[in-house]
Amino acid sequence: MSSVAKITVPGFKFAGVACGIKKSKKKDLALIFSERPGVAAALFTTSRVKSPSVHVGAKRIKRGRLQAVVIVSGNANACTGKRGLADAEEMCRETARCLGIRQDLVFPSSTGVIGVPLPMEKVRSGIKDAAGQLSSGWFARAAEAMLTTDRFTKVATASCALGGKRVTVTGMAKGAGMIAPNMATMLAYILTDAAVEPRCLKRILARAADETFNCITVDGDTSTNDTVLFLANGVAANSPVRSGKEEEVLSKSARKVMKELALKLVQDGEGTTKVVEVRVEAARSVSQARKVAFSVANSKLVKTAFFGEDPNFGRIMVAIGYAGVPVNPDKIDVSFNGVRVVKQGVGLNSNGRRAARVLRRPSFSVKIHLSQGQASASVWTSDLSYEYVRINSAYRT
Amino acid sequence: MSSVAKITVPGFKFAGVACGIKKSKKKDLALIFSERPGVAAALFTTSRVKSPSVHVGAKRIKRGRLQAVVIVSGNANACTGKRGLADAEEMCRETARCLGIRQDLVFPSSTGVIGVPLPMEKVRSGIKDAAGQLSSGWFARAAEAMLTTDRFTKVATASCALGGKRVTVTGMAKGAGMIAPNMATMLAYILTDAAVEPRCLKRILARAADETFNCITVDGDTSTNDTVLFLANGVAANSPVRSGKEEEVLSKSARKVMKELALKLVQDGEGTTKVVEVRVEAARSVSQARKVAFSVANSKLVKTAFFGEDPNFGRIMVAIGYAGVPVNPDKIDVSFNGVRVVKQGVGLNSNGRRAARVLRRPSFSVKIHLSQGQASASVWTSDLSYEYVRINSAYRT
Repeated sequence: MSSVAKITVPGFKFAGVACGIKKSKKKDLALIFSERPGVAAALFTTSRVKSPSVHVGAKRIKRGRLQAVVIVSGNANACTGKRGLADAEEMCRETARCLGIRQDLVFPSSTGVIGVPLPMEKVRSGIKDAAGQLSSGWFARAAEAMLTTDRFTKVATASCALGGKRVTVTGMAKGAGMIAPNMATMLAYILTDAAVEPRCLKRILARAADETFNCITVDGDTSTNDTVLFLANGVAANSPVRSGKEEEVLSKSARKVMKELALKLVQDGEGTTKVVEVRVEAARSVSQARKVAFSVANSKLVKTAFFGEDPNFGRIMVAIGYAGVPVNPDKIDVSFNGVRVVKQGVGLNSNGRRAARVLRRPSFSVKIHLSQGQASASVWTSDLSYEYVRINSAYRT
Repeated sequence: MSSVAKITVPGFKFAGVACGIKKSKKKDLALIFSERPGVAAALFTTSRVKSPSVHVGAKRIKRGRLQAVVIVSGNANACTGKRGLADAEEMCRETARCLGIRQDLVFPSSTGVIGVPLPMEKVRSGIKDAAGQLSSGWFARAAEAMLTTDRFTKVATASCALGGKRVTVTGMAKGAGMIAPNMATMLAYILTDAAVEPRCLKRILARAADETFNCITVDGDTSTNDTVLFLANGVAANSPVRSGKEEEVLSKSARKVMKELALKLVQDGEGTTKVVEVRVEAARSVSQARKVAFSVANSKLVKTAFFGEDPNFGRIMVAIGYAGVPVNPDKIDVSFNGVRVVKQGVGLNSNGRRAARVLRRPSFSVKIHLSQGQASASVWTSDLSYEYVRINSAYRT
């Protein structure tokens, strides 16, 4: 990956400032600005309890055109009622005013503590400040300004050729807890200078998210604020991508960027010491394979065993057992990086030492073979450590 | 509650011995023996991956008559294949031989590490030893001999009058982790000297378990070995309970015993420092109320907030949001022991200090009012502490 400091996306400018929302004085407001309105698509949290910022964002995305994104970190603007809705709209209004664009071209996001109204005076001054600092070289500042409990900024970039033009696809993401299927507390913004037809952009986003952001879990909690936005400003002046081979080419780059961001979210999961792929093979359907994989990937007992570097196949079998999928335990094989620990439902204790060596690695794969069909699915998860408990028992206090 | 050391149930004898299954040399084999065959009913784990002991127990219970229970702790006899099945049968055969009764009157249970074959030589010698020590006064020894990571023995007792006869209902339970809906790694044996018709016994057990053992959760994991057995030996010589008012009377005692055992299971949950009731009111149906309650009760973020004594209503709202129940967030109220922290979906931060005082208690209640209907449900859960991670990352190693 190229150095974060050098990332640029043609036609985009960025800013990240500290306006005092976070007590730590760290950066807490990010702006993304495109020199011209672009085509946009977005996916949001599946939670019934949505942040007003998400409600406003969802309304905004309907027209499919955006020019700016304003992101506040340290305050989720969730469970804040009507005032929260007004505040989210005001964030957009103020951004539009400072940038001299229409309010309905501004998309708002927020992440952080729930149930506390946004300190709007600080937010307003932050927006003004950020708008004055916009620069094509400050991608990294924006990526940093949306972090909360994250330990590092998460960015990824790719490029491809569309109709003879070189285009860039670059993303930044935020999230360390509440990472769970169907997008958890995570914000991700994927930017490209490619020209893309609106429908095609939507399709690319939905498919790529399904194979990346929707396949990771840290704690099984889905948040009120999750958002993945894909914004294409067309500055590359290629003839707009519509379908077929060009769609495939752009999809591949988008998937690469989103996969890299998704794995970084798991790697930065609160208290994570291990990144583990849970792969289920030979299932009857992809949905059954996923159900089994998520059951294993979300089990507190499996995750503490990973932390303890204990190849405890019993807990994996337990989590397969209660996944709600009609499996035949006597046909299940389980292996860690190819070292088999369960053969046809029976534990192979003789491989325990070799399996334990695999678990000492920072990253490994658990393969579960169900012997039922042709479908497979992978899910990426983290371990459950003391540090997870420390972070989450002390987050607000 | 009466002292554990003094508990007796007319017509029952008990034993608990150490036969070397546990490295710690603690007791690891329990026997329960009735002086005459009794009427029995049982409920088992809903997991697809069942211990061979559960398979044999389920076969045994079909006839509805039992005289003895043999329980091994320290080894779950799960993921042990055909050998595990043969071993579970041999446990019963050996017990029957030592007690001079028919093999099909013996019910086997096991709990502990998964995937390791039972050390049958030790088990055989333990059974012989226990059979020689049976005594009506050794209820507490049997209750102790089935523990694994438990910190204390869990027993409860009640009595009631049936047709002028005083009868006893007494239970012992085991379990500290994998405690989750629909019976997790827990074993419970409810014994009574009442005479009860088989169908009526089944009904009483199913209803009482649904309101007690099926409403608790520690880590959301359901085990391979869960068993609740209800055994009525009829020594009280009442005319057998069949239905109506007598069924109600006996049900009440059974529910009281099972509720007390269930709460002790949560209290002894691995690393538990808090026991919390999550009560959902004004839901459209009991099943929706339960779904919301379990979503909150199983959330790692909610449980770490309880450990941190942080009245973090945001995480509760998040867990309500992803429960999969169509709620209206703007109508939800949340309170801790009556201190309201969310009113119609909006956080009441002014009550934060009072709510924090509630969370310092070892036990409290979270009430969630959905304003949708008349149904309600309660679930009992624990917090998620450093100690939980310590126990579960080091369990096997």
